[in-house]
Amino acid sequence: MSRWEPNARGRLEQAALDLYSERGFEQTTAAQIAERAGLSERTFFRHYADKREVLFGGAPILEKLFVDTLAGTEDTVAPIDAVASTLDAVGAVFLDRYEHARQRQAVIAASPELRERELIKLASLSAALATTLRGRGVEEPAASLAAEAGVAVFKVGFERWIGGDGERPLAEFLRESLDQLRTVASGG
Amino acid sequence: MSRWEPNARGRLEQAALDLYSERGFEQTTAAQIAERAGLSERTFFRHYADKREVLFGGAPILEKLFVDTLAGTEDTVAPIDAVASTLDAVGAVFLDRYEHARQRQAVIAASPELRERELIKLASLSAALATTLRGRGVEEPAASLAAEAGVAVFKVGFERWIGGDGERPLAEFLRESLDQLRTVASGG
Repeated sequence: MSRWEPNARGRLEQAALDLYSERGFEQTTAAQIAERAGLSERTFFRHYADKREVLFGGAPILEKLFVDTLAGTEDTVAPIDAVASTLDAVGAVFLDRYEHARQRQAVIAASPELRERELIKLASLSAALATTLRGRGVEEPAASLAAEAGVAVFKVGFERWIGGDGERPLAEFLRESLDQLRTVASGG
Repeated sequence: MSRWEPNARGRLEQAALDLYSERGFEQTTAAQIAERAGLSERTFFRHYADKREVLFGGAPILEKLFVDTLAGTEDTVAPIDAVASTLDAVGAVFLDRYEHARQRQAVIAASPELRERELIKLASLSAALATTLRGRGVEEPAASLAAEAGVAVFKVGFERWIGGDGERPLAEFLRESLDQLRTVASGG
């Protein structure tokens, strides 16, 4: 087996998702994932620290997309509106990702260890958004609250998208969730 | 040593907090905590599953306080106002707890494993609040968003309280954070 394997990360992730769906996360080993992907165990560990991380390889990419988009909005825009256009941009990335996202979410929901890792991902995202907002001159606690609100909207909207039939795009669910948060916060 | 130890849980928690502050969470064992508390290791494990859980014995009590207070508000009150009076009641419980809360938070902040556990506590709280709101007839996604908003306000307000000098009560910080969230959500 050559050292360079085309799309090894993507193949390992899909193999892991399939095995976790079939047997459960706890019952699957890194060796089995590598085998299913047609790769060696050594290749697995060259790409991922452990079998939990296989499902979170995209987390830094998602966080970077959030942060770069938020940082790129005009400083004169209100924090919540900057968050809104960020959510639009993030939602667009998930077009054609419905089946994958749905499978991944089902696997995560079934494992306490993966649910914990997902919480860490979202907490990291919230901290990164708050830092970005402070960099735009938003003061505390507004920066942290706008960041937490953005992540809450993302989490709730994402779950509703996954729970639906995949016909409507994620961006719509995110927009609806944000509207709903505004309504709730204003006493509706 | 008799089987019944007065306030064993509280003594174990304080001993754990002190040792984690002095040596760090990772460097402390359950046996050392029991010794510092003047109790046996067996007593430790009768009260707590492991050394992580010692700091989270109050989590179910806090969650119950949140849920019972929220469930006890009038159904005609808007979700966010029900959350607001819940936060007031919760804040009141932390009067005279500033030094303890501050020590605990510093210990948690220093350990990734404890920070994870704290995230699980807050996620559980959010889910419980959403369930309670649905029980009051609030529909989704409003219930989940109001719950997430309440937990975000609690988290941010709590951190600001801990970061201050302890002169002003937690309830004030929670009220300010909620006001700030309303302002942010309305585009301020």
